[in-house]
Amino acid sequence: MPSSAHDKCGVIGLCSSKPVAESLYFGLRVLQHRGQESAGIATHTELEDIQYHRGMGLVHQVFTKKELKTLKGNSGIGHVRYSTTGRSRPENSQPMLLTTALGDIALAHNGDIANAKELKEKYQKKGWGFITDTDSEVIIRMLANSVSKTGSMEEAIKKTMPKLKGAYSLTVLNGGKVYAVRDPLGIRPLCVGKLKTGLVVASESVVIDMLEGELIRDVRPGEVLEICQNELKTIYRIEKKHTAHCQFEWVYFSRSDSYLDKATVYNVRRRIGRELAKLWPVDADVVVPVPDSGRTYALGYSEGSGIHYAEGLMKNRYVERTFILPEQGQRDSVVSIKLNAVRSVIEGKKVVLVDDSIVRGTTMKRLVKIVRKAGAKEVHVRSGCPQVVAPCYFGIDMKSKDQFIALDKSEEDIAKIIGADSVGYCSIDALVKAIGHDKKDLCLGCLTGKYPIKIEGKEKRNI
Amino acid sequence: MPSSAHDKCGVIGLCSSKPVAESLYFGLRVLQHRGQESAGIATHTELEDIQYHRGMGLVHQVFTKKELKTLKGNSGIGHVRYSTTGRSRPENSQPMLLTTALGDIALAHNGDIANAKELKEKYQKKGWGFITDTDSEVIIRMLANSVSKTGSMEEAIKKTMPKLKGAYSLTVLNGGKVYAVRDPLGIRPLCVGKLKTGLVVASESVVIDMLEGELIRDVRPGEVLEICQNELKTIYRIEKKHTAHCQFEWVYFSRSDSYLDKATVYNVRRRIGRELAKLWPVDADVVVPVPDSGRTYALGYSEGSGIHYAEGLMKNRYVERTFILPEQGQRDSVVSIKLNAVRSVIEGKKVVLVDDSIVRGTTMKRLVKIVRKAGAKEVHVRSGCPQVVAPCYFGIDMKSKDQFIALDKSEEDIAKIIGADSVGYCSIDALVKAIGHDKKDLCLGCLTGKYPIKIEGKEKRNI
Amino acid sequence: MPSSAHDKCGVIGLCSSKPVAESLYFGLRVLQHRGQESAGIATHTELEDIQYHRGMGLVHQVFTKKELKTLKGNSGIGHVRYSTTGRSRPENSQPMLLTTALGDIALAHNGDIANAKELKEKYQKKGWGFITDTDSEVIIRMLANSVSKTGSMEEAIKKTMPKLKGAYSLTVLNGGKVYAVRDPLGIRPLCVGKLKTGLVVASESVVIDMLEGELIRDVRPGEVLEICQNELKTIYRIEKKHTAHCQFEWVYFSRSDSYLDKATVYNVRRRIGRELAKLWPVDADVVVPVPDSGRTYALGYSEGSGIHYAEGLMKNRYVERTFILPEQGQRDSVVSIKLNAVRSVIEGKKVVLVDDSIVRGTTMKRLVKIVRKAGAKEVHVRSGCPQVVAPCYFGIDMKSKDQFIALDKSEEDIAKIIGADSVGYCSIDALVKAIGHDKKDLCLGCLTGKYPIKIEGKEKRNI
Amino acid sequence: MPSSAHDKCGVIGLCSSKPVAESLYFGLRVLQHRGQESAGIATHTELEDIQYHRGMGLVHQVFTKKELKTLKGNSGIGHVRYSTTGRSRPENSQPMLLTTALGDIALAHNGDIANAKELKEKYQKKGWGFITDTDSEVIIRMLANSVSKTGSMEEAIKKTMPKLKGAYSLTVLNGGKVYAVRDPLGIRPLCVGKLKTGLVVASESVVIDMLEGELIRDVRPGEVLEICQNELKTIYRIEKKHTAHCQFEWVYFSRSDSYLDKATVYNVRRRIGRELAKLWPVDADVVVPVPDSGRTYALGYSEGSGIHYAEGLMKNRYVERTFILPEQGQRDSVVSIKLNAVRSVIEGKKVVLVDDSIVRGTTMKRLVKIVRKAGAKEVHVRSGCPQVVAPCYFGIDMKSKDQFIALDKSEEDIAKIIGADSVGYCSIDALVKAIGHDKKDLCLGCLTGKYPIKIEGKEKRNI
Repeated sequence: MPSSAHDKCGVIGLCSSKPVAESLYFGLRVLQHRGQESAGIATHTELEDIQYHRGMGLVHQVFTKKELKTLKGNSGIGHVRYSTTGRSRPENSQPMLLTTALGDIALAHNGDIANAKELKEKYQKKGWGFITDTDSEVIIRMLANSVSKTGSMEEAIKKTMPKLKGAYSLTVLNGGKVYAVRDPLGIRPLCVGKLKTGLVVASESVVIDMLEGELIRDVRPGEVLEICQNELKTIYRIEKKHTAHCQFEWVYFSRSDSYLDKATVYNVRRRIGRELAKLWPVDADVVVPVPDSGRTYALGYSEGSGIHYAEGLMKNRYVERTFILPEQGQRDSVVSIKLNAVRSVIEGKKVVLVDDSIVRGTTMKRLVKIVRKAGAKEVHVRSGCPQVVAPCYFGIDMKSKDQFIALDKSEEDIAKIIGADSVGYCSIDALVKAIGHDKKDLCLGCLTGKYPIKIEGKEKRNI
Repeated sequence: MPSSAHDKCGVIGLCSSKPVAESLYFGLRVLQHRGQESAGIATHTELEDIQYHRGMGLVHQVFTKKELKTLKGNSGIGHVRYSTTGRSRPENSQPMLLTTALGDIALAHNGDIANAKELKEKYQKKGWGFITDTDSEVIIRMLANSVSKTGSMEEAIKKTMPKLKGAYSLTVLNGGKVYAVRDPLGIRPLCVGKLKTGLVVASESVVIDMLEGELIRDVRPGEVLEICQNELKTIYRIEKKHTAHCQFEWVYFSRSDSYLDKATVYNVRRRIGRELAKLWPVDADVVVPVPDSGRTYALGYSEGSGIHYAEGLMKNRYVERTFILPEQGQRDSVVSIKLNAVRSVIEGKKVVLVDDSIVRGTTMKRLVKIVRKAGAKEVHVRSGCPQVVAPCYFGIDMKSKDQFIALDKSEEDIAKIIGADSVGYCSIDALVKAIGHDKKDLCLGCLTGKYPIKIEGKEKRNI
Repeated sequence: MPSSAHDKCGVIGLCSSKPVAESLYFGLRVLQHRGQESAGIATHTELEDIQYHRGMGLVHQVFTKKELKTLKGNSGIGHVRYSTTGRSRPENSQPMLLTTALGDIALAHNGDIANAKELKEKYQKKGWGFITDTDSEVIIRMLANSVSKTGSMEEAIKKTMPKLKGAYSLTVLNGGKVYAVRDPLGIRPLCVGKLKTGLVVASESVVIDMLEGELIRDVRPGEVLEICQNELKTIYRIEKKHTAHCQFEWVYFSRSDSYLDKATVYNVRRRIGRELAKLWPVDADVVVPVPDSGRTYALGYSEGSGIHYAEGLMKNRYVERTFILPEQGQRDSVVSIKLNAVRSVIEGKKVVLVDDSIVRGTTMKRLVKIVRKAGAKEVHVRSGCPQVVAPCYFGIDMKSKDQFIALDKSEEDIAKIIGADSVGYCSIDALVKAIGHDKKDLCLGCLTGKYPIKIEGKEKRNI
Repeated sequence: MPSSAHDKCGVIGLCSSKPVAESLYFGLRVLQHRGQESAGIATHTELEDIQYHRGMGLVHQVFTKKELKTLKGNSGIGHVRYSTTGRSRPENSQPMLLTTALGDIALAHNGDIANAKELKEKYQKKGWGFITDTDSEVIIRMLANSVSKTGSMEEAIKKTMPKLKGAYSLTVLNGGKVYAVRDPLGIRPLCVGKLKTGLVVASESVVIDMLEGELIRDVRPGEVLEICQNELKTIYRIEKKHTAHCQFEWVYFSRSDSYLDKATVYNVRRRIGRELAKLWPVDADVVVPVPDSGRTYALGYSEGSGIHYAEGLMKNRYVERTFILPEQGQRDSVVSIKLNAVRSVIEGKKVVLVDDSIVRGTTMKRLVKIVRKAGAKEVHVRSGCPQVVAPCYFGIDMKSKDQFIALDKSEEDIAKIIGADSVGYCSIDALVKAIGHDKKDLCLGCLTGKYPIKIEGKEKRNI
């Protein structure tokens, strides 16, 4: 087994005075954008300890009414997993479950443990064997080991956290309690909310909205919450001078309607759009978003520039990921099925085409072609995210450096490659300003190559 | 078997100097919004006459690479079918195929034959038996019968068309030729385009765009085209004084980026939005669309009114039609999973909420609730489509009168029912103006109860 | 579409004072050996006329409890279909249903209409179109046509039967009545039995046993039965001087425990085994059957010869038809998985290996090899069925002449080819004697090339 | 999670100079009767260490050609698992894989560790967590732990074996070598054979036959074999005064054509049949086996008694385990579908009905009824296996005492219950004699309640 897969995902945890399986299911559906590879739910009852069901596929494919019914209990956790490497196997799906001296423990993990390989090797030498190739099994085995010595999950978490380096937002289920754990840098999001019948923790606040609850606050970086029915208790806290919230959560990964670490995603994106209009003004007739994620940026750009906004690219609602590729290898036509230009919006116009990010540039190249074919006089491309030039080691699937179009290239170069009249990326400073946190409190690793945690031999990592 | 199911769908036909199966597949994917129940493709080769493959489900579920490879031949037709009644069975999927004295005939049909029941009974008395309960089998059996007498498909079509009353856009495959047939009133759309290697007919022009071809023109009401490789020939024409293009194709059914009967759908919707702003002005802070279909209307309303446009409702990209309904019957939470409000856009604001249509009112009622919960001060609802008050007998699935919220109710009444501060529907005259055709050339049956074709005993129809 | 597929199958029909779907399901499971390609059931209720469900696969794969529940009604028919050609498509599965002037008609057919092609062409010229490529659609359309003229199913059957040449055992459902129809030569079997709550017709008497009923009698050659609840009525009879019962039904196709046209299959096979012992005596130590079908023959041979019987070949219970073939193309190992020799039975022995038939000889060749490898001193092969040298045109899937190992070859030749010390086939006379009917009353076409019905241009038929 | 599921199964291991996946697949198909719940294969290559594929279902359902192709390597192990409890989940399927300090280890296990619960609790206290609820995970974790300390798989096995109490036949894969391990009492079978290109170990000798190899010998009780390509080495041996071969392997579980611990199953069963004839003679006309497993016993009885043998019950070849049970709860009709009487064999006869065993008696009761209905004058039941009166703790799924019909009942009582004229079980002494081992060398626990290993608190076990 290759050594280390990465767990990028959405997590949820719920304690209630009523059965939770159904709410966990609906919560996971709302987090589906954070992971489409597998889904799972674990619940706890006095009699049976922890029960779970997991499977490959989307949430609604994994769970039927029948499975939800078998998941009894008033506390539970859930997980959706994101496909990053070839190792997408059922065993790697979560929640992960371990039977220990303190009963069953279930764990759901979003993030990426930077020292997972080192920890795994160390424990293998101590005689531990690993069934999966995930970071998450490393964490849950450390908890299990600690629990046997301390006899307490609280102590086990306190002993384990300091040994972990990296990004982790965890929900842990044991003995009917849910624990919410967030790494000291607060890299991945996690928030807690109040429902009519209990408490919920989740990767994004949209889950709380959907369950008709009220957001209480973000789980603090380095904080451990214990949730037992309606009681919320901070049982541990590691405080650091700075945080390192991932900028990409606002820019791309989280939903527009989520509120993360004191900033609404929608507002951040709109502000970036306005900043872009200042940084990269252009004499144009229409601002056209790349749907769906470019829309908020484009609205901001339109507001900032005063240029008319129109939906000039239409998305095929029924295009899912399964594709029979054309024999001739015409990848262009695949893009055409997904997005089609509205000729009447574009014909004869100078168009500003706005997307959230341009990482590899291949899709944008095809879109420019489509827009030109629909009669655009000029095509000016704008990207909400600054130039991505370095891999992410904390849970976002950004592949090797060869794939970054912006690496060592000027914006003029990029415009030539993708066939645009001009290209403009948001600047790092404008981005930071739009997010509203101090620059030192953000992880900008993928934009700068400088990471908040030292990555040993990072060039060798087989991400 | 109940007597008559209705065939509402998308059709396509292709003649080329190269194999057509793959292009038909991509074309159907682009027409997927017109029918999600079943899909099928039929192709012709000299040696094997017509081969076909059909199945229940979305296009990409029905066809794998393997099936496409078995469908050889340079001419073919395709079909996607819309689920209207409980009779969604494999046998009713299309293209329908019949072996006749003139070889195999395949037929794909979009529309609804008003006198299908009468025709079926007449022919049953003559000794014909029917395997399916579709209008389409009635048409194809009439063609088969006529073909045996005339020995010519051209003659068979000429003899059959005058007997059919209703809406029909057909593609027919026989002997390597494709025939495109449109009813004399032009109720359902059908257009023809030129590709690099041949000719294509399709329900909507987006298919031609996707195949990188050029739109030639709409098939004329009452026209029959024969397509043989690159040759396009009008072989028959029934001319009427007026047409009866379905208004709902522009307002709801067709894609925004399609061009139908001389009007781009996008432009029609935007003009309606501007008209709405004039007809139903309101003192508000923000115009919010119901995604995805309300967006173009909302942009038009924003332009017409000068009120700021913002995306205040976010759609869950991963919500498909399969749902485990909550035990408690809380249908509200289902809507919450599909759409969630962006609090920062809505809180404290007077909101204009714009959708394409409000037929039953149930979804809009829940949306108003969601928007209010997010802190809206006022909610004003606007509908691009005028009040729907009568069933459609020509291919749109509008159920019985009980379901129309607008029937015998004022806009104040409706506002009360759905909990809005005000409700405004576009007027029929403004709609007609936005479409740009003469009122007499449109079918407005669902808005007026007056149909372009006499419907016998319409109250007894078991639609 | 190629012109003519052949319908070899099992049929059933049931009229009762209780719902019949479940009994039809169990009946079809018992007839499963007659057809594994598809299965279907049609039932009748006053309100809905005929409902049906069919599908590809084995009976238990096609029907779940849910489907059986939707099939209401106290009368119905069922069908299992045998895979003969490549045209195994859902449309060809049965019962076939047609909506006619006299309501719905459903038909289940076992047999093969020799003049189907001629009839089809004749009716195509009259304007009929055919959806499937089956004989059965020809019959049901003829019934539908006749019904419209006569207004009576009884009359329609009387008018249609004389036009059909070939083998057919039919069950027909119309207006709550079941009709059982058997061709004038009685080629395929059909019997009728009494249940506690009604009457049943079926291809084989095992169905009646399983439903805990009593066999009444075989349906007579050329007879038409009308069954209406507990009432059984002969409504028509075509009498011929001779019958032509298919010998292969007793020898191979029917179940050992069935009773067909006055002879129990088990007894016929045992008698053949005894005859074989007289015709082909040999000095041997043990009689070993090829399981499962060779067992009864081998017991007869053991009784006739006084040679000890033992189970020297063991069958793998879990080997089904799905196989991943070995890369190297070693078909031998596939046979080894299906059947393995019991060394202690075979080692050092002179073995008589008995099977029901040796048509192509390929499997027997491999078995001889397996038995020799297990240490047999001599291997003598005996076949219950005489030499098959001609195709069947009446419903058994015997392919072209090239495949018959016995054609123009002596028994010594065959022994050499399959590696046996000797080979012995039962003689035609001994077979006829064992069956107990007069030779003139049997169809021996596959053994003699002489058929009970003239087959036009039989060498051109694309079976 | 409930504490302990039982692993009853078939195992295989292969080392070769060629890729092994395909041979493992065919080997598992031949062992399919030992486990139908799940199947799996693990193979080893230098580059990737161990790869595996497992799944729920029969071997041919779990593996397609594609999966076999991905399993590269010249050494590997395989497993089929038997459904015993409700805990049939994917995680419990085997081979089980663990990544350790000595690379990957894969394990396949047939048997039941009596002290698994105690071991598990002990190790949980040491901090180990368990992902599955199987004995097998206990073993593999002990190996992993030992390996980290000793640095050698050989040493790890030597250290682990003495701690295990119970039945286990294991195949272990590590570093390209296969280890075959059999418990000191030799409870479950395991044998080793030579192939053209390597060596194979398997639960039963039929695997060796099928792969066209030669049986070398049984793996000795307490022996550990290391297999590396063509080299076979005994690396450890625990010798006990006695063995405890499970009698049920010969009587029921293994295939007739297997050779286990010096006795061919077929011969054992035939000898038991002959003994039965002596122990329980009866004046009868015909000996009828319950197919398939009663056949060899019945032949022996026929030989011993001189009473004529006939196949009076016919099995439906197509009846698999999936059943829609009749609404009315008539379980009888389910048996009728599986088995049907041949009236001509049975009518008016005194019948001896022979089966391998009568544990609960429910099926036999129904069979007696079926045989009587077919006209039997008398029905005398004989069982090859003596009375089962106690649970098995070593790998056979015999449920709680309530289910044993023979417990505290005389043969006359049992005859009354099942409706037979007489019932006769083989005696323990006759059984022992037929097997040919010394009584002290057999496990007769299920017949006597006396087990070869002390079972602590056996009445509390939740088997």
